[in-house]
Amino acid sequence: MKYPNSNKVYVRPNVSAGNRGMSLEEDINRTSRYYLTEDIAVIHKKPTPITIVTVDYPKRSAAKITEAYFKLASTTDYNGIYKGKYIDFEAKECESKTSFPFSSIHEHQINHLRSVIKHGAIAFIILRMTHYDKDFLIKASDFIEFYDSGTRKSLPYAWIEENGFVIPKSYTKPCDYLKTAEKVFEL
Amino acid sequence: MKYPNSNKVYVRPNVSAGNRGMSLEEDINRTSRYYLTEDIAVIHKKPTPITIVTVDYPKRSAAKITEAYFKLASTTDYNGIYKGKYIDFEAKECESKTSFPFSSIHEHQINHLRSVIKHGAIAFIILRMTHYDKDFLIKASDFIEFYDSGTRKSLPYAWIEENGFVIPKSYTKPCDYLKTAEKVFEL
Repeated sequence: MKYPNSNKVYVRPNVSAGNRGMSLEEDINRTSRYYLTEDIAVIHKKPTPITIVTVDYPKRSAAKITEAYFKLASTTDYNGIYKGKYIDFEAKECESKTSFPFSSIHEHQINHLRSVIKHGAIAFIILRMTHYDKDFLIKASDFIEFYDSGTRKSLPYAWIEENGFVIPKSYTKPCDYLKTAEKVFEL
Repeated sequence: MKYPNSNKVYVRPNVSAGNRGMSLEEDINRTSRYYLTEDIAVIHKKPTPITIVTVDYPKRSAAKITEAYFKLASTTDYNGIYKGKYIDFEAKECESKTSFPFSSIHEHQINHLRSVIKHGAIAFIILRMTHYDKDFLIKASDFIEFYDSGTRKSLPYAWIEENGFVIPKSYTKPCDYLKTAEKVFEL
């Protein structure tokens, strides 16, 4: 899925990572399904926001949308509940070896993270550095602190390694982010 | 917006209520925007889930979705955070004078409410009875208890009046559901 009309650096949100053949989104959804069926947590990806212009209603078959456009998300993509806590996060894949560019996360998503932190959320970013085949959990508050310092236009990989927490993976939980969140946020 | 391929009783989710000219969805969204800008809570409606089949990428203009279909929602439409609590609810408009039919709320939405309750959510249903021009907050646990009793196929209006809590409205908060939730759930 492409979002044109944007001259920002494009970090693919939804593309096979290295030789694993699964996108971060698929891995998160699969893990979240495991959490759901095992009654560990209820976390869902929000649907892609769309502006619908035209819908056909053919007789005896499903309504068909024939003109619609992608809309910018005003929140992060994932939220839900774990151990009574409100969980909120954004997930990004990054192919660069050296850094994660801020241009690939939208300002209003960052502001959304600021708001939910203020209201007591467990908020983070899951960053898949495809070159290193590693998924990191970064506390949204750490991310925002660095972002607000205004000295860089990206998160250097060295910063990610120092401040991020590696997320374990297994067959049933290909991105076991709650295991990491549990330790990092002492849940 | 219609969802054909369904022989269920159709309760309009998104239609002007009486002479107020605003749908419940618009009233909730407007109220939630007020909560957001006044830094009271962060609650958003989830986008309508869509299965995208075909997307055109014209040069120099926005990607255009030319074939897509409505998908059944697997969760409720609204969630977020208030006073550190995870909030989750569904909203329905009902034009019947006598009852709210269960057929207008999907089984998996009810199951979603069951799950989030188990994990500690503040969960409810906002029911606009358009004939009476009243919005009710119904605790999801009360709704589910009645639903599971299996004696009826709808919520009788008398039950709604007895077990529901009227939601106040004002110009800036046309459906001030948190005011009601605060009392009902002692937040």
